[in-house]
Amino acid sequence: MRQVFHQSLEDVQSRLVEIADLIAVAIDKATRAFATSDVALAEEVIADDAHIDERALELDEIAIEILARQQPVARDLRIVVTALRVSASLERMGDMAEHIAQLARYRFPERAIPKGLKSTFVSMGERDVEIARTLSELLRTQDLRLADQIRNADDAVDELHARVFEKVLSENWRGEATATVDATLASRYHERFADHAVSVAKKVVYLATGDWAADTDAIDIAITKDQA
Amino acid sequence: MRQVFHQSLEDVQSRLVEIADLIAVAIDKATRAFATSDVALAEEVIADDAHIDERALELDEIAIEILARQQPVARDLRIVVTALRVSASLERMGDMAEHIAQLARYRFPERAIPKGLKSTFVSMGERDVEIARTLSELLRTQDLRLADQIRNADDAVDELHARVFEKVLSENWRGEATATVDATLASRYHERFADHAVSVAKKVVYLATGDWAADTDAIDIAITKDQA
Repeated sequence: MRQVFHQSLEDVQSRLVEIADLIAVAIDKATRAFATSDVALAEEVIADDAHIDERALELDEIAIEILARQQPVARDLRIVVTALRVSASLERMGDMAEHIAQLARYRFPERAIPKGLKSTFVSMGERDVEIARTLSELLRTQDLRLADQIRNADDAVDELHARVFEKVLSENWRGEATATVDATLASRYHERFADHAVSVAKKVVYLATGDWAADTDAIDIAITKDQA
Repeated sequence: MRQVFHQSLEDVQSRLVEIADLIAVAIDKATRAFATSDVALAEEVIADDAHIDERALELDEIAIEILARQQPVARDLRIVVTALRVSASLERMGDMAEHIAQLARYRFPERAIPKGLKSTFVSMGERDVEIARTLSELLRTQDLRLADQIRNADDAVDELHARVFEKVLSENWRGEATATVDATLASRYHERFADHAVSVAKKVVYLATGDWAADTDAIDIAITKDQA
């Protein structure tokens, strides 16, 4: 019975890693589609999101099955509950990738990235991809130093996010309303993507260190405080 | 023991209702602060959000305590897991109210609502308040007809959200970039608020009808598809 249980927990973990891998692929494709106005690539991301949702749903069902059949306690219980929450955050990260791809598709054949913001958005996209890959690695290895890397990359994304608004709200901004709307939404999606990753990383850290109660989403709120 | 367990589940339910009530107050204040540029009211909402987060965290701890001590199965297990998810959605609704209040504060003493969009945003705000109150009632009474009301009100919010973008992207839009950014973010916050409520309502319905597995967030994604 113990043996079966540990297999189940390992199954949960490997499924989380698998979903994180799918998300790393999705954000890589989405940000490239957005940067290069590649509508075919954007369509791929949009189609693939349903698959990510299914995988997350399957994971949730397995976690609930474990709760029902194995009735884990203490640390094992925390692992399963955390898996449910991580799964929800990963699913939202997939949504953000999809939203970025949708922006690329909506504007096609026009450029999705407003003039003057290309390098900023390319940097943001690269950071998001790096974050997604690091998150997958963190889930796989439980190497907590990776959580710091994610936090640092998120700080960089926050700075780029602020830079988008600086540009858009500066005297020199010549973009039309469409460009302003696109920049606003795209920047928010990139930034939320990174926020969700930080939230997952915190859950992994708290699970490892036992300081679970400190993992309030208040931390996420602090991070997003200056987003508007 | 059974007696104690049912008291715990009731405690979970009454706490969910309590948080939903706090959120109804928050969104009422936030949308009024936004409409009237009332910075004091905005500050209240921002300060109160930490309290909502605390209440949600307490509820999560109680739910996990129930899982650990009472090891519920079947429907009781679903109730507890659903409570954890509902708590996360309510917490995000509180964040959206806070974000709306922040927009009011940032622009003060300027008007937060861009010119030409006042009536649209007032309507959106009223719908969000209605949705929050109905959600609280749904959690209290489990009267599933209220879920339909929430869904209908969310459709109305989606239409208003689309109308904001129509205006902002029309030839006649004379707003500066600040106004365009504010309209984009504010509209998205109002719309996400309603989405989270629909997501909670679905969880309550599926819990009541037993069709739990169908409660995939894919439904939320479909709803938000056209948001950008």
